[in-house]
Order: sequence, then structure tokens, then C-alpha cells
Amino acid sequence: MTNKDDRFSFGADIAGTLVFAIEGAVAAVHGNLDLMGLMVLAFATALGGGIIRDLLIGDVPPASLRDWRYGATAFAGAAIVFFLHRPVERHMTGEIVILDAAGLSLFAIVGTQKALAFRMHPLVAVLLGTISGVGGGTVRDVLLAQVPTVLRSDVYATAALAGAILMTVAYRAGLPQIWAATVGGLICFSLRVVSVWQHWNLPRVLGE
Amino acid sequence: MTNKDDRFSFGADIAGTLVFAIEGAVAAVHGNLDLMGLMVLAFATALGGGIIRDLLIGDVPPASLRDWRYGATAFAGAAIVFFLHRPVERHMTGEIVILDAAGLSLFAIVGTQKALAFRMHPLVAVLLGTISGVGGGTVRDVLLAQVPTVLRSDVYATAALAGAILMTVAYRAGLPQIWAATVGGLICFSLRVVSVWQHWNLPRVLGE
Amino acid sequence: MTNKDDRFSFGADIAGTLVFAIEGAVAAVHGNLDLMGLMVLAFATALGGGIIRDLLIGDVPPASLRDWRYGATAFAGAAIVFFLHRPVERHMTGEIVILDAAGLSLFAIVGTQKALAFRMHPLVAVLLGTISGVGGGTVRDVLLAQVPTVLRSDVYATAALAGAILMTVAYRAGLPQIWAATVGGLICFSLRVVSVWQHWNLPRVLGE
Repeated sequence: MTNKDDRFSFGADIAGTLVFAIEGAVAAVHGNLDLMGLMVLAFATALGGGIIRDLLIGDVPPASLRDWRYGATAFAGAAIVFFLHRPVERHMTGEIVILDAAGLSLFAIVGTQKALAFRMHPLVAVLLGTISGVGGGTVRDVLLAQVPTVLRSDVYATAALAGAILMTVAYRAGLPQIWAATVGGLICFSLRVVSVWQHWNLPRVLGE
Repeated sequence: MTNKDDRFSFGADIAGTLVFAIEGAVAAVHGNLDLMGLMVLAFATALGGGIIRDLLIGDVPPASLRDWRYGATAFAGAAIVFFLHRPVERHMTGEIVILDAAGLSLFAIVGTQKALAFRMHPLVAVLLGTISGVGGGTVRDVLLAQVPTVLRSDVYATAALAGAILMTVAYRAGLPQIWAATVGGLICFSLRVVSVWQHWNLPRVLGE
Repeated sequence: MTNKDDRFSFGADIAGTLVFAIEGAVAAVHGNLDLMGLMVLAFATALGGGIIRDLLIGDVPPASLRDWRYGATAFAGAAIVFFLHRPVERHMTGEIVILDAAGLSLFAIVGTQKALAFRMHPLVAVLLGTISGVGGGTVRDVLLAQVPTVLRSDVYATAALAGAILMTVAYRAGLPQIWAATVGGLICFSLRVVSVWQHWNLPRVLGE
């Protein structure tokens, strides 16, 4: 990739971090946590998925701890919710669904790409891409002592999984990485947005 | 160990992974999770203990992510429960106790062995062996927002601990590793099966 | 640091481990866990924060698993509560607050120091110091299926954070490490003790 691509991809990563941090902080407010809980949930939601991925592929310290700008962005997300809770809350059901779907796609794709770059088996790369996308939200829900929403409702992790699979297949089929990423990301994004709009759900078990 | 031993031990490891994955998937169905939750819990239960152990001894990426057959086995366990939930459920109280005890023993022994091979202190090797055995079930229960069953009921982690201690003592006493492993594994297995059969429990505190 | 400093700092570390292990074991008794749960919570509370920090900075196996005396100390804490539950419980609201504040300060300072020694960015060092202090208690509460108390009540993580910030600032300003540590530790300790005494709390969000 060129330097310009790098800068674009870093900017997108920071934008996704901010969106996830805001969502984490809002969840903290709903969970009746104080300012410290709000900061912890902003950090955990925004950076948790990538940190778990980096621990598992052995890239430590995790990327988001090597570059202070990730932590600062998560902190900014927490501050926005702390000072502007009501205006933020008003946008939580509309725009945030789109922004969250974009963040999910981005994290899933970046995670898959990194796992492939670390020469993980394609099956494992798909797994790690999905974890990058949904790991932060899972840590957030565990800290709130709730069953992670990604495990019980609608098409969220599934969208990340589909995007990661498609990207991996496209990449292995010889497509340039940037195209493989675009295809995977678009599938994840569309699947997520359409499923919210159409109230899609996954089955529990077959024949019951 | 000879090559034949290696193949046997790999086969046993995969069998244990399948049993634990099935148990995780059944727990997901009971927890009212969807297909994605079912897959996540199958993975977490089957591979969680070994992954935590490998992160702690610094063997990353964890063994179960380096070899795609572990992930595929966990996935197969999830698929079995998804498609054949009722027949599986019928066997959950009988055969599964025996299979689970076998899986627990195997994971505890393999974990202890690996920790000793990485030159951890015997006390730490015992700890890591126990974690290998019960870590997956602990992660599963945390994801279900429940207090891990291993922390509050009957002789489960205790069986793993006893097996890990006995194996470590036997190994340090100079017994060949294969014998130390067999002794430890048999103790863990018998202790677990007998304790289920006899409804043994651990005390909470002394004198209350 | 001289050898004598090292011995002092090791002794303090072991003392902090014992206090945190006792608190974890008492939480296990309140949570109705058995002897195994009591041991697991003692270990998790005492060593969890440092283990998470070491995983994140890439110092594996974690320090507390390389030296068996940490595990043995956690085990001793569990044994004390198991055999002497009632006398221990009687001291839980008085002396233990002071001892816990001392343990928190120590862990936060040691964690910050280690992160700085591993050349992490100051912002990240502050984060890791705080995690060292409160990570164990967080893992304990997650295992008890509760929202971690550090996220929702009073000035606990905040004291660790303040100590870590002050120490990092003092260190970067050129103060000798031992002085930076002392200043940070005293601030953390005082803030914690005064906040318990004065019932200080953090706000949730501004303007509500």
C-alpha cells in the first residue's frame, strides 16, 4: 500500500474507534456507571476487539497501546458523552446504526487483513476478523454483567463473519488486497444495515 | 515421544475438543442464544482453556489457532448441536458425564505437560493444567453472565487440580512422562466420575 | 535501584498480594462459592491486574507466574480465609480499608513503573498502572457475575488513575523514580482513604 492508503486507513480506524467509544460510554450511562465506568467502557468497547486479536496473534504490545492516538480517541469519545449526553442520546437510534455498521465493517476487515498478514490459516483469519469487529462490544457487555448482545440477537457478528469470509476468499482467489477488503467491508455493512431495517434474526436450533 | 504417541495424543485432543464444543453449544441453546451464540460458545468452551494457558506461558499464537483442525472441530460440535439438538440433549445426563470427565482429564494433563515442557515452576504448572481443564467452561459461563459452575459446585476443578498435582509430583519424582500423565489422568477421571455418582461437594468455609 | 530497594519492593508486593487475596477469598465466601471458588477468587483478585498488565506489555510469562512465591502468597490468603473466616470478617470494614488502599497504591505504582520501564507512551503507562491496581478486582467481580464495583461506585479506580498520572508526570519532569513513585503512591493512598471517609463519589454525566 502507498503512504496515502496508510493515512486513509489510519483515519478510518480512528473514526471507528471514536464511534465505538461513544457507544460504550452511552452503554455505561444506561448501566448507571460513574465517570470512571464511562471511561473504562469507552476504552473497552473501542479497543477491546483489536487488543484481543493482537494478543492472539502475538503482536504485543497491541497496536492500540503502541500508538497513543487510539487511547486519546477513546478518551475523547468518553468526554463527548460525559459533557453532551443528551444530544448524543438523541442520535443513538438513527445515525448511530449507520456509523456503528461502518465501524463494525472496518474493524472486521482490518482484523482479517492483519491476521492474514501474520500468516494465520484462512479459517483462523476469519475468526480473528470477526473477533476484531465484535470483541469490544463483548467485553463491554461482560463488564455490564450481561449476556453479550452479539450472542443472542439479530445479525451483528454474522455480518462481521460474512465480511471476513468474503474478504479472505477474495484475497486467496488472488484479488488485490484493497479490492478484497472493499468487497468484504461492503458485504458486512450492507448485511448489517439491511438486517436492522428488516428485523432479521438468526435461528436458534433447527426444527424447534 | 514417538510419532505414534503424537498421533494418539492429537486424536485424543481433538476428541476432547469435540465433547467440550458440544457441551458449549448445548449451554448456548439453554441460554436462548442464536446460531452465532451457539458457535461462539462451542469455540470458547472447547478452546478457551488452552488459549488462556498458551497466552500465559507465552506460546502465541495459541496452538489451537495455529492448527485449523481445532477450530474446524469446534465448528463441527456446534453444527451437530444445531442440526441434531434433540438427540444430543437426550444423552446429556448419561454418556456426556463420562465423556466430559474424559475431556477434563485430558485437557488438565495436556496443559500440565505443556507448562512443564515450558519450564514453569511445578506450582505454576499445576495451576496452568487446572486452567487448561476448566478455563473453557469458565469463559462459557462468563459469556452467559453466570457465576462459573466450577467455582460453586461439586468436584470439577478439584479433580483437574488433583490430576495436575499428581502428574507433576510423579514427573518430578522421575517417572517417565507417559506414566506420570496416565496416573494424573486416571485420578482426575475417577475423582470426577465418583464425585458425580456420590454427589460429593467441597466445603465453603470451615466451622460454619 | 539498589538491592535493598529491590528487597523492600518485593516485600511490599507480596504484602499487597496477600491483602488482595484475602479480599478475593472473602468475596468468594459472600458469593456462596466453595473452597475451589475461594482459591480461584483469591488468585484472580491478587494476581489478575498484574497478569493483564504483563500480557499487554508483552512480558510473558507474567512476573507473578515466573516467581512461585506470588502464587503461594495468594494460596496463603485463601487458606487464612478458609480456616479463620470469622476473625477475618470482623476486620473487613476497619483495618482492611487501609490495607486495601495501601495495596491499591502499591499495585498502581508498580504497574506504572513497569510500563514506563517497557517504554510505553506515558498515556498508556497511566492506563496500565490503573489496570494493575484495579484489574484483579474487576476479574473477581466478572467471575461473580456482577458489574465490577470499580465501575460504579466511589473513588477507587480514580485514586489509582490519579496516582499513576502524578507518578508519570513527576517521572517525566525528571524526578528520581523513587520520589516519583512515592508522590504517586501517597496521592493514591490519601485520595482513596479520604474518599471512603468522606463518602466521595464521581458524577455520572454532566447536567442530569
